[in-house]
This record gives sequence, C-alpha cells and structure tokens, in this order.
Amino acid sequence: MNTKRNTVPEIPGAGDYLIASKTCELMSLQYFLQMGRLVQCISSLVHGLQRERGASNVFLGSSGKKFQEERKSLAVESDRLKREFELALAEIHEELTGHPVSSRLLNQIASALHGLEGLGELRRCVVARKVTAESATEDYSSLIHNLIAVVFEAADTAVDPTIAGLLVAMVHLMNGKELCGQERAVGSAGFSSGAFDRALSERMAHLIEAQERCFEVFAGFADADSLSLWQKVSSHEREGEIERMRRLASSVGRFKDLDPELADQWFKLMTERIDALKQIEDSVEGCFHTRCIERFAAAKKSLAHQETLVASLDTGGAASQPLLVLCNSGSEGSTGEAFSSEGMGQQFGRSIFELVQEQTRSLQKMTDELQSAKEALEDRKTQEKAVLLLMKHRKISNDEAHRLLRKLAMDQGRKLPEVARSLISMADVLK
Amino acid sequence: MNTKRNTVPEIPGAGDYLIASKTCELMSLQYFLQMGRLVQCISSLVHGLQRERGASNVFLGSSGKKFQEERKSLAVESDRLKREFELALAEIHEELTGHPVSSRLLNQIASALHGLEGLGELRRCVVARKVTAESATEDYSSLIHNLIAVVFEAADTAVDPTIAGLLVAMVHLMNGKELCGQERAVGSAGFSSGAFDRALSERMAHLIEAQERCFEVFAGFADADSLSLWQKVSSHEREGEIERMRRLASSVGRFKDLDPELADQWFKLMTERIDALKQIEDSVEGCFHTRCIERFAAAKKSLAHQETLVASLDTGGAASQPLLVLCNSGSEGSTGEAFSSEGMGQQFGRSIFELVQEQTRSLQKMTDELQSAKEALEDRKTQEKAVLLLMKHRKISNDEAHRLLRKLAMDQGRKLPEVARSLISMADVLK
Repeated sequence: MNTKRNTVPEIPGAGDYLIASKTCELMSLQYFLQMGRLVQCISSLVHGLQRERGASNVFLGSSGKKFQEERKSLAVESDRLKREFELALAEIHEELTGHPVSSRLLNQIASALHGLEGLGELRRCVVARKVTAESATEDYSSLIHNLIAVVFEAADTAVDPTIAGLLVAMVHLMNGKELCGQERAVGSAGFSSGAFDRALSERMAHLIEAQERCFEVFAGFADADSLSLWQKVSSHEREGEIERMRRLASSVGRFKDLDPELADQWFKLMTERIDALKQIEDSVEGCFHTRCIERFAAAKKSLAHQETLVASLDTGGAASQPLLVLCNSGSEGSTGEAFSSEGMGQQFGRSIFELVQEQTRSLQKMTDELQSAKEALEDRKTQEKAVLLLMKHRKISNDEAHRLLRKLAMDQGRKLPEVARSLISMADVLK
Repeated sequence: MNTKRNTVPEIPGAGDYLIASKTCELMSLQYFLQMGRLVQCISSLVHGLQRERGASNVFLGSSGKKFQEERKSLAVESDRLKREFELALAEIHEELTGHPVSSRLLNQIASALHGLEGLGELRRCVVARKVTAESATEDYSSLIHNLIAVVFEAADTAVDPTIAGLLVAMVHLMNGKELCGQERAVGSAGFSSGAFDRALSERMAHLIEAQERCFEVFAGFADADSLSLWQKVSSHEREGEIERMRRLASSVGRFKDLDPELADQWFKLMTERIDALKQIEDSVEGCFHTRCIERFAAAKKSLAHQETLVASLDTGGAASQPLLVLCNSGSEGSTGEAFSSEGMGQQFGRSIFELVQEQTRSLQKMTDELQSAKEALEDRKTQEKAVLLLMKHRKISNDEAHRLLRKLAMDQGRKLPEVARSLISMADVLK
C-alpha cells in the first residue's frame, strides 16, 4: 500500500477503506441520534391524536353533549405537537434526503404527512357532526397508523442491534398503545350509546388480543427500566377494573341498555392506562437516546484509534512482510485454508491484518445480534400481508382476517408468523 | 400541504418525501451502474489471478522446469488487471465513502486491497520456489476469495430485485469458477507430481461437489443468454474428458505413479473450461449493465412524471378535499379499516393519494421480489458460518466440515441451509 500510495496518491488503500467502514457506522449512529428525536415527536403526536380521537368519540357518541371544550383544547394541543413533529422532520430532512437511507421510510413519511394534511377537514366534520363516531375513529386511526409506520420503517433501517432492538420495542409499544386507544374509542362509543352490538364486541375482543401480542414483542426487546415500568402497569389494580368492564362490553346483548355513566368511568380508566403506556414510551426513548450517545462515543473512539494505527502503518513497515500478511488475511476466509498461522510474528503485518479482521468480526457479531430484531419486524410484515391477503380472497374484514389467522394457527398448533408465511407462500396457488 | 408550505416554506410536505423516495431509488440505481464496472474488473482480475495461480502451480509442481515464462507474463497481465480494478475503485470511491452504503462492503474492500498488497511478495516466493504448490495455491485462493467476497457484499446492498438477482448469479458463478480454478490447481499438483494422495483426492471431490452447488444457484438467478451459454458449457464434449480424468485422480492410490504428461492435458482442459466460465461472467455483467441502464431510465422517467404531478398539486386543489383523501390514505393500512372507499371521487385528492399508494405498492413488490435473492445470499452466509463453527468445535479442516455438513443433511433428509441454520442455532448449546 505504502509504496503505491506514495507514488499514486489518488488510489485508496486498505487503510482508507477500513476507516471508511468505521466512518460508515459512525454516520449511521449519528443519523439515529437525530431519528430518536423524530421518534419521540411521533410518540407525542400520536398520543395527542389518540386523546383527541377519544374526546371526539365521546363528543359524537353523546350527540355533541359531552366533551365539546375538551375536544377543542385537545385539538389545539395536537396542532402544537404536529408542529413539533414537522420541525423535527425539517431538522433531519438533510440526512433523510441528502443521502437517502430508504425509499420505504421516505415514502412512509410522505404517507404520514399526507394524512396529517387532512386533519383540519376531519375536525370540521367532527364539529359539524357530519361523521359517525366509527368513521371519525377510522380516520384518526389511519392517520395514527401512518405515523407509527414511520417508526417501523426507521427500525427497519437500523444496523446497530442495540438500536434496532429498542426501535422494535418502541414500535410494538406504540402499536399496542394505539390498539389500546382504539379499544378506548370502541368502548366509549358502546358505553356512551348505551349498547354494544356484536360488531363492537368482536372488534373489542380483537383489539384486546392484538394488544397482548404487541406487548409480548415489546417485552422481548425493551430495556430493563422500561420493562419494570411495564410490569408496574400490568400489575396495577386499574387493570382489574378494566377487565371487568371489558367483560361487560362483550357479554351485553345488542338490545340491552347500559348505564351511559359507565362511559366516563371507562374513558377515565383507559385514559390512565394510555397515559401510563406513554410514560413507558418516554422511558424507551430516553434509553434509546442514551444508547445512541454511548455507541456513538465508542465508535468515535475506536475510529480515532484505528486512524492512528493506520497512519502509523502508512509511514512504513506494513509492506515489509506482505506475504505473511497475505497468508493470514485468508485465514478467516472460507476457501478451505482457514486458521493457517505462518508468520503471525510480523508486528506491522499483524496489526493491519488484525484491524481488518477485528472489524470483520465486530460487523459479523452485529449482523448476528441484529437477526432477532429483523425477524420481529419481518414477522409483523408477514402477518399484515397475510391479513390483507385473507381480506382480499375471502372478502372479510381486517378483524375477521386476524381471527381466521389466529384460528389457523391454533388448529395447526403452529406460531402465527409461521402460518402467515405458509399462507403467503400459497398465495399464488390461491389466486 | 399547500397552505402550510406557502406560509412556512422550510417545512417539507408529503410531495417532497414522495419525490425523495423516488430519488432514493434513482441514486441507488446510479450507484449500481458504477458498481457494475467494479464487478467486471473484479471478475477479470480474479480470472487473471486464477491463470497466474495455475501457472505458478505447474511451475512449482515441476520443480521450476515448466511454465517459467508463462507464469511471468501472466503476472504482468494480473498487474494490469489489478491496476484497472484499483482505478475502477477510485472512480466509485466517492459514492462508496461519501454516503457509505455498507460497513461490511467497505471492510471487505479493505480486506481485498490488503490481500493484493501482498501479491508481489508471494510471487517472489514462488519464483525463488520458497513455497510449496499447496501453500502458493492457498495464498492465491484467499486473495481471490477476498475479491469475490466484495461482489457478495455488493449484492447484499442491492435493493432492486432484478439487479440483486443478477449479482447473486454473478457471485455464485464466480465462486463456482474459482472452485473450478482450485480444482485445476489441485489436479495440476497431483498430475504433475505423478500421484494423488488421499488428501488431494478428497480435496478434489469436495471442490467438484461445491462447484455444482454454486452453479445450481447461478442457474436459478441468471438471465436467459447467460443461462444458454452455461448449458453450452455443461453439454460440451470437454466435460466428458474432464470427468474421466477426475475419476483417474480419485481412484489412483497414493503410491502409484501417473504419467506426468497428463498434467498438461488436465491443465489444458480445465483452462478451456475456466475461460468458458469467464465468458459467461462477461455475459452476466453485460446483462447487468443493460438492466441497470433500463431501470435507471425508467426510474428517471417516473420521477419526472411524479415531479410534474406533485407540482400541479402544490399549485392548489389537493387540500380541497383532504378528509376524503385521509379516509382513503388509511385504506391500504392495517388498522382494520382497509378498503373503505368513501370519497374516491375527488380528482386532486385521489391523485396525491394514489401517487403515494402507487409508490408503496411498487416498493412492496420490489421487497417481495428481493426475498429470494436475499435468501440465496443468506443461505450462503449461514453455510459458511456453520462450516467455520464445525471447524472450530471439531478441530477439522474446511473440507471435512463441508463433508460433515453434507452428511448431516443427507442423513436427516433436509436441505443444507436448513441443517446449517439448526447447527448455528445450537451453537451456544454446543459451547
């Protein structure tokens, strides 16, 4: 390298690419440090929209008698959070579009922004009570779904396992919380209108089951602090009351009347639960931020260290025993000559060789650790695809598709993602 | 979006991110267009090094009597190809390191460059006959392995399925050709020394089997032209003669003497085969280049089209019916309200909505089609990991590990990658 780089400086050598490889990690960590702020803004905006949706539902369900003012002030708050999200986005805009990380992420951001642009009109329809509680819930839900999906795509672009894992925990927590919010909305509609028909009850059952699956995945990837917060939430006495009301909602026949006062109690309980979940989200975000900073500092240190070493090698020595270096450089290779050990004694040869091998090992380790996070995201994608597939083929609703998928899994004694995969693999045959 | 963007221009809207998503695809295609040239240079350099390795082996195997001049001129040719590779690398250096695509790719390039830096010393050892034919083969092989691994990592960064598929075909073709080159070297060593001991015969058997697996994968991803070229090669009469000599090499006991003249015949036949394989590589590369250009032109056209549409939407209309847009924007979502169809009549609303949805669908389609290519790469990684694992645990050679893995697969009637996966999943238990 040395001789060549001295005579023809424009040709980059092994050292340059080793440094580039480290720099690449560093850039990615810096990017996720900023992404963390965007995720936090999304988490808060989603929370605001969920509260606004809840109030709008009570407002519509009570034919405009209740929550008029609450809805209004919550809308103002949502607008503030929307603005913060847009500013965070503007801040990371350069990184996102300058050297784009993922077409999928960028397109999902487009979806989310596009949805937010309809918020004003949605509110006008709610105030004028031109929409039903159900349809308003739908609109808020798809809006929220598109925001959470941004976090999902962001998680999909993570290469650092610790960071990817926390984003997986985050996106499943957000999804679980959203399902909880939808459950609150469905419950509010039912309780305040005084009755649950089969559709409402079934929808609630689905939302409860889906929540649990999300929280399972969250628990598998969350940091210790967030996990203990989660355990506090699930062991809270409030959960018992919620369960009691859930049973009420599912056991009531379509024509019996419920005390509309229950609506307030239900709304209060679920709101407390949702707020508690939001606190867990903040805790995950906090841990995410800390880890990004730690990993960034570590990577920066290691880069500086390598630069020094590579520089010292460039100033001579490295080329003195290239053959011995070469003999070793293949030793981790897969050509059938692994672990040959001649000439490991050459100090310079060894160090340049070891720097590259060290990086290879650390990258391999990261890829391996990343596996489980990627699988969790993959499973989610697969299930959503399977559900859409069933909806199309069977002309059934999303809930029914979810139920059918769960039934298939139960009947076959297989895991949901498994069943979803085989379903998709059979899709062409079904067509 | 419009109103907002008029008052606060710095906040990017849905349209901006839709464009960014398209631009992201475009940048990636442009990058692979350049990467294609690098791959071609690698293919040629590897070919040169394989020829040099072959000549060096005959030279060493014949105690310096044969191929003295051939080896020299082939080394000169390799240096020319090495120089071309370095220039191609310098050309793409900006794209590789400016906004780095992959730490793994960059680090693998570092490995390859590092290996090349030892080439001069390796040759000096060969000329001075300070090394055995086996050890020289090892060194050339690890050098070549590191170059091919660059193509592997490049394939791993591809997001366009057609492009990824061709790179998968290419890397497996290169690997098969390399195994064929190693077989030529092993055969040359055996024939010219007049005898094959068990180790040599077993090594040859392994190289033959491994080749076949590589060519299977190649055939699964190759373009039509390259595939028919491949069929020509495998149906060529030369194959029969090669098979005959292979049997000779494997059936001969360790003490019986072979006519050293066979070495020349073997070398000639295998060289013809390798040169034919190189032509297939060129054909794959040609097709890769064409596809990159086609895809790039298509993506550019589609981007321009979208820019026009988005611009037309920015100048008004889009916000006129945002609620209806919103209702639909969730319709492909997975929040349980898919396929709602209210308000699909709004022309402007529909077009911005449809642009985003269209992009979502096309990205989803690409991801689905990418699956098989990614799996092929994944399988390869898994098998290499399983082999290294067995080597470590059982303290056996790479060949033995490969054989053991194949035996396990045969005994259990399962596919190799499957067995490799379960082996790795058991690794921690084995430790």
